[in-house]
Amino acid sequence: MRILILGGDGYLGWPTAMNLSAAGHEVGVADNYFRRNICRETNAEPLFEAPNLHDRIKIWKKKSGHEVKSFIGDLTQWSFVEEVFKSFSPEAIIHYAEQPSAPYSMLNRRAASLTISNNLMVTANVIFATREFCPEAHIVKLGTMGEYGTPNIDIEEGWLDVEHNGRAHKFLYPRQGGSLYHTTKIMDTDLMWFYVRMWKLRVTDLMQGPVYGLETDENKGEPRLYQFFNYDEIFGTVLNRFIVQAVCGFPLTVFGKGGQTRGFLNIKDTLNCVRLSIENPADKGELRIFNQFTETFSIKELAEKVQRVGNDLNLDVEINHMENPRIEAEEHYYNPKHTGLIELGLEPNFLTDDVLAEMVETVMGFRDRIDKSRIIMNIKWF
Amino acid sequence: MRILILGGDGYLGWPTAMNLSAAGHEVGVADNYFRRNICRETNAEPLFEAPNLHDRIKIWKKKSGHEVKSFIGDLTQWSFVEEVFKSFSPEAIIHYAEQPSAPYSMLNRRAASLTISNNLMVTANVIFATREFCPEAHIVKLGTMGEYGTPNIDIEEGWLDVEHNGRAHKFLYPRQGGSLYHTTKIMDTDLMWFYVRMWKLRVTDLMQGPVYGLETDENKGEPRLYQFFNYDEIFGTVLNRFIVQAVCGFPLTVFGKGGQTRGFLNIKDTLNCVRLSIENPADKGELRIFNQFTETFSIKELAEKVQRVGNDLNLDVEINHMENPRIEAEEHYYNPKHTGLIELGLEPNFLTDDVLAEMVETVMGFRDRIDKSRIIMNIKWF
Repeated sequence: MRILILGGDGYLGWPTAMNLSAAGHEVGVADNYFRRNICRETNAEPLFEAPNLHDRIKIWKKKSGHEVKSFIGDLTQWSFVEEVFKSFSPEAIIHYAEQPSAPYSMLNRRAASLTISNNLMVTANVIFATREFCPEAHIVKLGTMGEYGTPNIDIEEGWLDVEHNGRAHKFLYPRQGGSLYHTTKIMDTDLMWFYVRMWKLRVTDLMQGPVYGLETDENKGEPRLYQFFNYDEIFGTVLNRFIVQAVCGFPLTVFGKGGQTRGFLNIKDTLNCVRLSIENPADKGELRIFNQFTETFSIKELAEKVQRVGNDLNLDVEINHMENPRIEAEEHYYNPKHTGLIELGLEPNFLTDDVLAEMVETVMGFRDRIDKSRIIMNIKWF
Repeated sequence: MRILILGGDGYLGWPTAMNLSAAGHEVGVADNYFRRNICRETNAEPLFEAPNLHDRIKIWKKKSGHEVKSFIGDLTQWSFVEEVFKSFSPEAIIHYAEQPSAPYSMLNRRAASLTISNNLMVTANVIFATREFCPEAHIVKLGTMGEYGTPNIDIEEGWLDVEHNGRAHKFLYPRQGGSLYHTTKIMDTDLMWFYVRMWKLRVTDLMQGPVYGLETDENKGEPRLYQFFNYDEIFGTVLNRFIVQAVCGFPLTVFGKGGQTRGFLNIKDTLNCVRLSIENPADKGELRIFNQFTETFSIKELAEKVQRVGNDLNLDVEINHMENPRIEAEEHYYNPKHTGLIELGLEPNFLTDDVLAEMVETVMGFRDRIDKSRIIMNIKWF
């Protein structure tokens, strides 16, 4: 299948490009290095330097024999979008081309505006280009479990049947995000769902929880093919951050009570979920929604896991319940459903102590590159 | 009170400016003539020419003795927003500064992009400016009943208590708009509601139904102070359109079966609702939502009303059920609640035959200015 990955240089974009090309698909990636640029601006550099996209593609070709086509440009600009869609003629589009950081979206007015305009205008352009150049193509859009927030009832998989005053209606599950970033993802969904109804697009929305992990089947043994691995407060996801903190002797930064519970998954499972969705497309006029995670942990449980495994590896891991810079429930009900991807064939890679130990050991090899000043950046929600 | 009206040149903005200044408030209006420009671009000129904002303000001063301050500029640009908020120091902000037409938002890609970027960026700037320059100010944001769509259950006033699997949660009422314009209003609400939670803004969201009407207490007898009165397919609201069609002998354009039911209100009631909301502000950290309409009609009922009243005035009014250019339910359940504004003191001006006859007679005085080619513009949703 001809698959266009928007945001193909990112934490998920690049591993997805390798994974789908290894599976025999024809892959194109589009990116404008937006993520690299804002990492540099905020001094949130990742643990490893990554070759640029052209070089990554060459290294991957040499390792695997597979070609990936690249398009460098800004997807908020229609002229670029038009050029990419016309020349590549995608049969499927994976839309990762968003400002992906919750803390960055709360940093200041400029970062907030950029998050809104970038995320919304790219999503709109993807919709318009699909309608104009490839109306049968399947759009796989990355959502986030964070769109649901932490309601006091079960989180269903995308939709909610409501009975009210003796009548019934099925709604898109009502959403309430915990950051501006999450709110823009809700707005993306509003937009996508509207055009699915009007123009009979095929869309899969993957409501993903926080991802962790470094090695994939494709990058194993070739660190130049690693995705970005951030451990800073802005771009690092929580487990990746905790692992780096454990390795460099920084007390694990648990925000408040740590009862915040989320659905997590290994980056290997992200790749499997995306590939399963691509290979089993949504119907025409369908917005198909999957909750994409494999198990839930509270932040406190996660910290304790890292502490136990770290201490077994002779690290001296402490946990610090710091003042919560976010506005969020620190203890709450959390019961999200997630059967759709399992039914499609997902076989989860759970977070066992062995898996965690392997991640810790990999990061220990890069201990000298850790800059502790990146761990706390004091971005407040209020 | 010092009240800043964003979009103060528009169909609602200008009458609101006069109404609130007549009530003794200090009023400032900001506008960039966006609405006038897109009317001109699409050849959807209103029934009367309106003097520009400076001239309107002079005419109003001469008639009433009240001053209105004007700011001409683009509210998507932070530099302008900053200047307006700093120099005016509003205690309340009325946010009308949006691309307000559903058909325009469906016209083409350019119009769609403009609707998204204009509506979202202005809303974001209003939030950022309020936080920065007047965090205690009350924001009154114009929403639309169209955000709710036509669910198969009662439409509550902004919020919905859901019971599910033995647990309960109060959600923002789930929304599903019928056009891109309506969808951007949903996205506005997502954004506003997020920052109400984070920054304790005070916001009132007025979920308004289609407005009709021409004369207000302020413009009576002075046509140069009339708001825009559009009768074209793009900017005309349905009852205003039907009245012009009746007057010029064009069969009333009912889309499909005409069972589409909406909540309507007289523009005089819009002014009363806005003033009541301003004079009774929302609490800090509250998103207060009112459903703003006074009675519901189906489009078919409305057409029949206009036919009956028009024929009594010796017009020969026909009704034409044309093919529906929109994707919408033509027959549906519709039971929206609307008690909040009544409780605040609203005394509705209902659509009696006398009120309708008065509107028809006023428009009959401008019969020569009607351009029939503006009635059908063939904007399709699909």
